[in-house]
Amino acid sequence: MSHYDKLTSHYQTLSHFNHAQAMLGWDAAANMPSGGSEARSNAMAELSVHIHRLSTQPQLEEWFGNAEQESLSTEQKASLREMKRQWQQATMVPEDLVQAQSIAGSKCEHAWRTQRQENDWTGFEKNWKEVVALSREEAKIRGAALGLTPYDAMLDKYEPGTTTASLNTLFTDVKTWLPELIENVLEKQKSESIILPSGTFSTATQKALGLEVMKLLQFDFDRGRLDQSVHPFCGGVPTDVRITTRYDEQDFVQALMGIVHETGHARYEQGLPKAFAGLPVGEARSMGIHESQSLFFEMQIGRSKPFISHLSRLSADAFNAHNDPVFAEDNLYKIYTQVEKGFIRVDADELTYPAHVILRYEIERDLINGVIEHTDVPALWDEKMKAALGISTKDNYKNGCMQDIHWTDGAFGYFPSYTLGAMYAAQYKATLIQNVDFGCDFDMAIQSGDLSPIFQWLSDNIWTQASLHTTDELVKRATGETLNAVHFRKHLEGRYL
Amino acid sequence: MSHYDKLTSHYQTLSHFNHAQAMLGWDAAANMPSGGSEARSNAMAELSVHIHRLSTQPQLEEWFGNAEQESLSTEQKASLREMKRQWQQATMVPEDLVQAQSIAGSKCEHAWRTQRQENDWTGFEKNWKEVVALSREEAKIRGAALGLTPYDAMLDKYEPGTTTASLNTLFTDVKTWLPELIENVLEKQKSESIILPSGTFSTATQKALGLEVMKLLQFDFDRGRLDQSVHPFCGGVPTDVRITTRYDEQDFVQALMGIVHETGHARYEQGLPKAFAGLPVGEARSMGIHESQSLFFEMQIGRSKPFISHLSRLSADAFNAHNDPVFAEDNLYKIYTQVEKGFIRVDADELTYPAHVILRYEIERDLINGVIEHTDVPALWDEKMKAALGISTKDNYKNGCMQDIHWTDGAFGYFPSYTLGAMYAAQYKATLIQNVDFGCDFDMAIQSGDLSPIFQWLSDNIWTQASLHTTDELVKRATGETLNAVHFRKHLEGRYL
Ligand SMILES: [Zn+2]
Ligand SMILES: [Zn+2]
Repeated sequence: MSHYDKLTSHYQTLSHFNHAQAMLGWDAAANMPSGGSEARSNAMAELSVHIHRLSTQPQLEEWFGNAEQESLSTEQKASLREMKRQWQQATMVPEDLVQAQSIAGSKCEHAWRTQRQENDWTGFEKNWKEVVALSREEAKIRGAALGLTPYDAMLDKYEPGTTTASLNTLFTDVKTWLPELIENVLEKQKSESIILPSGTFSTATQKALGLEVMKLLQFDFDRGRLDQSVHPFCGGVPTDVRITTRYDEQDFVQALMGIVHETGHARYEQGLPKAFAGLPVGEARSMGIHESQSLFFEMQIGRSKPFISHLSRLSADAFNAHNDPVFAEDNLYKIYTQVEKGFIRVDADELTYPAHVILRYEIERDLINGVIEHTDVPALWDEKMKAALGISTKDNYKNGCMQDIHWTDGAFGYFPSYTLGAMYAAQYKATLIQNVDFGCDFDMAIQSGDLSPIFQWLSDNIWTQASLHTTDELVKRATGETLNAVHFRKHLEGRYL
Repeated sequence: MSHYDKLTSHYQTLSHFNHAQAMLGWDAAANMPSGGSEARSNAMAELSVHIHRLSTQPQLEEWFGNAEQESLSTEQKASLREMKRQWQQATMVPEDLVQAQSIAGSKCEHAWRTQRQENDWTGFEKNWKEVVALSREEAKIRGAALGLTPYDAMLDKYEPGTTTASLNTLFTDVKTWLPELIENVLEKQKSESIILPSGTFSTATQKALGLEVMKLLQFDFDRGRLDQSVHPFCGGVPTDVRITTRYDEQDFVQALMGIVHETGHARYEQGLPKAFAGLPVGEARSMGIHESQSLFFEMQIGRSKPFISHLSRLSADAFNAHNDPVFAEDNLYKIYTQVEKGFIRVDADELTYPAHVILRYEIERDLINGVIEHTDVPALWDEKMKAALGISTKDNYKNGCMQDIHWTDGAFGYFPSYTLGAMYAAQYKATLIQNVDFGCDFDMAIQSGDLSPIFQWLSDNIWTQASLHTTDELVKRATGETLNAVHFRKHLEGRYL
């Protein structure tokens, strides 16, 4: 057996344990009663140890060395590159640091759940200090191994190839036009009247409606499910994708668009190439590309006028409310494109969302690179929120720097993925509407209710490409250029001005 | 670290992988869409390989040898005995035989699913021949290792300590009185009129009713759930027990009593001692003892008059049918104690069920011991069915020897557990109603709606005892004697005559 084949077989074995881990994680969020959590945590920790052991098995180094000498096809070379990337990621950081991070992160995150509610920065800061220190250590070690700055090495975990230099350029550009755009849109929307949903929308009916919308989006129910969890997510495995949502019986609009978003993640997973099942090269390219799919579904398809026309019809049917003005196309469109300055990222609309991300990016970049200290964060947050959205978070930690879970356990480098995803999604849309070969009007396809041509393009250009190419290559092949924020700006101006 | 401690830690590690396997199995039955099955099978097969590897790790032999020299408490000795038992069970049969059995069993079972429907004995026989041959080989190897006859060695897998000699005595006794009892009961029931449920009983309402009944039976919802699957079962882990049922919208009585049955299995699991969590000594004693709990819940509690009074009230409430005579106490009691001679074991009532089991026992015993050949089975089945229930299965394989899944993949030795369970359950009940210390009338406790004294007895005598004692010791401690079929006979005569 060639060393390439040995590696392939090894990573397929690993994928079976990852399958188990993914399902246990989904079940813990969607089904598990509270009494089951201790034994579940132990089982998942044991699986993690085993997965880590397989991921860092000593003979892998020799196998990689030998496999690189073997004569391989282009696809096999890509597969080898991605296996090696995962191996490097797994072996780069010493085990005792990983363990220390896991303990400090769990402690900080657990305490944060009450500290946030109590606006207790002093208590949080004591635990977070350790998390930041360990993440800086991790970033230094990764940076040294990869020849990158500390923060770039953290970015590399989620967005291989993305650098501070490129993000600075992208985000500096956004900052030149976004604040004014927000002001103009707010001014424009001032005069609009919206009728907000109120009253009882039963969970069962909302779920039935969600399933209808998933059908429209061609979710493959033979290879996936919709369930409920406190924090919506897309989990499972490509042959069995488990998406979740959270229902509010007072309002259906958020859960419904949440389902559209998670369906985007799900179709990417369902569309990954079977030929590379279980192998790193067959996995999603990056967090940003994953988000580009969910946000393409949510922002480019989901909040488009023709799609909202479907939502209007389907939701009025579901709630048996054909004469209720809430469900009128125009009104629903206004609801789904309403812009508001707010404290909370997860509640932010499409237009103000990038401001939240850029603020976090600038702070975590400087924090990991040692330019600022963790105690500087609240003041910086307040200052940047005032600059971006004109609102102050002074002494309001719970709605400021303590609002997100990401930093509590050291996931520095993740936030940019959200806005990268939004930008990629806008760029795909621009390509789709310009492409003569596409042979189909984007809005018309949505309006017709048969979105197949759009999904075919995504499948050909993104889903089936998995990790065969670098992110830049992937996007260039799909759109003719690497990431270009002008499409995002045009999209926002087109929709909101 | 002592070798005893090393073994303890090893078996706890093993339990984490078993946790994963149990949950994946439950999910496959309760949630998984069909497209997910191939990857799931692969993941579960990989976990099996890993579990087998851990179960048969070469250094275990030395650890067991050394641990037996260490000074241990009585409970530690029991724990060591049970770890060693599992190790012996895992190492006893050569891996290539296990693999051959797995392949032949899967092939036979898979083909059986259509062959049964088509009454195709000839087709089935061709695959089954191999399954029987491999099981005989397994039985011989186990027998040689344990110093038992081949069939006794198979019994030992499910019912450690139970022998052909003891089963022959028990079942020969039953055969002296059961046929006449059945005739007398049928004669008595002839004149009774029963109103059968008909019409639509929605799945949602049936589930809500099932949950009410589980509450009455003090199922711990903080450590378990009720879901749906094609074949009802009790799965999961002791801290998170997953029971399932199957609903028929034309009739609610079977699903409801099925929930009572599975709740019995579940409470045994939920009641296992935390001090031995993850260790073999902390697991259920045997299949027969497990069934003694489900059948105690189903037959001793569930079909008792005071419990059926609760079911009458709760189901009439649930279906909003207070004046419907179907739900009257007397009528429901008649439904739940109706006796009928039938072909199918899983549809059999409490009274005729043992006849189905004894027939299977006699055939599988002789088949595994080489007294008969697999081609003799249909004729023997016909002959024994005529003797036991006066019905012929000549040429009716689908309702005869091809009806059960058990033999298709070689689970010979399992069937006796069902009737052993029913007998143990009757013996517990006899102890409970005779025991002065119990200080509570059995029927009164049920009638009051607070069944705690009954559950306390089960917890003290069965659940918390797990595998600390042999089955005989367990039953003797609980009831003052080893298994005595007279209690079963008295119970049946008391209820049905
Ligand atoms: Zn997302
Ligand atoms: Zn059972």
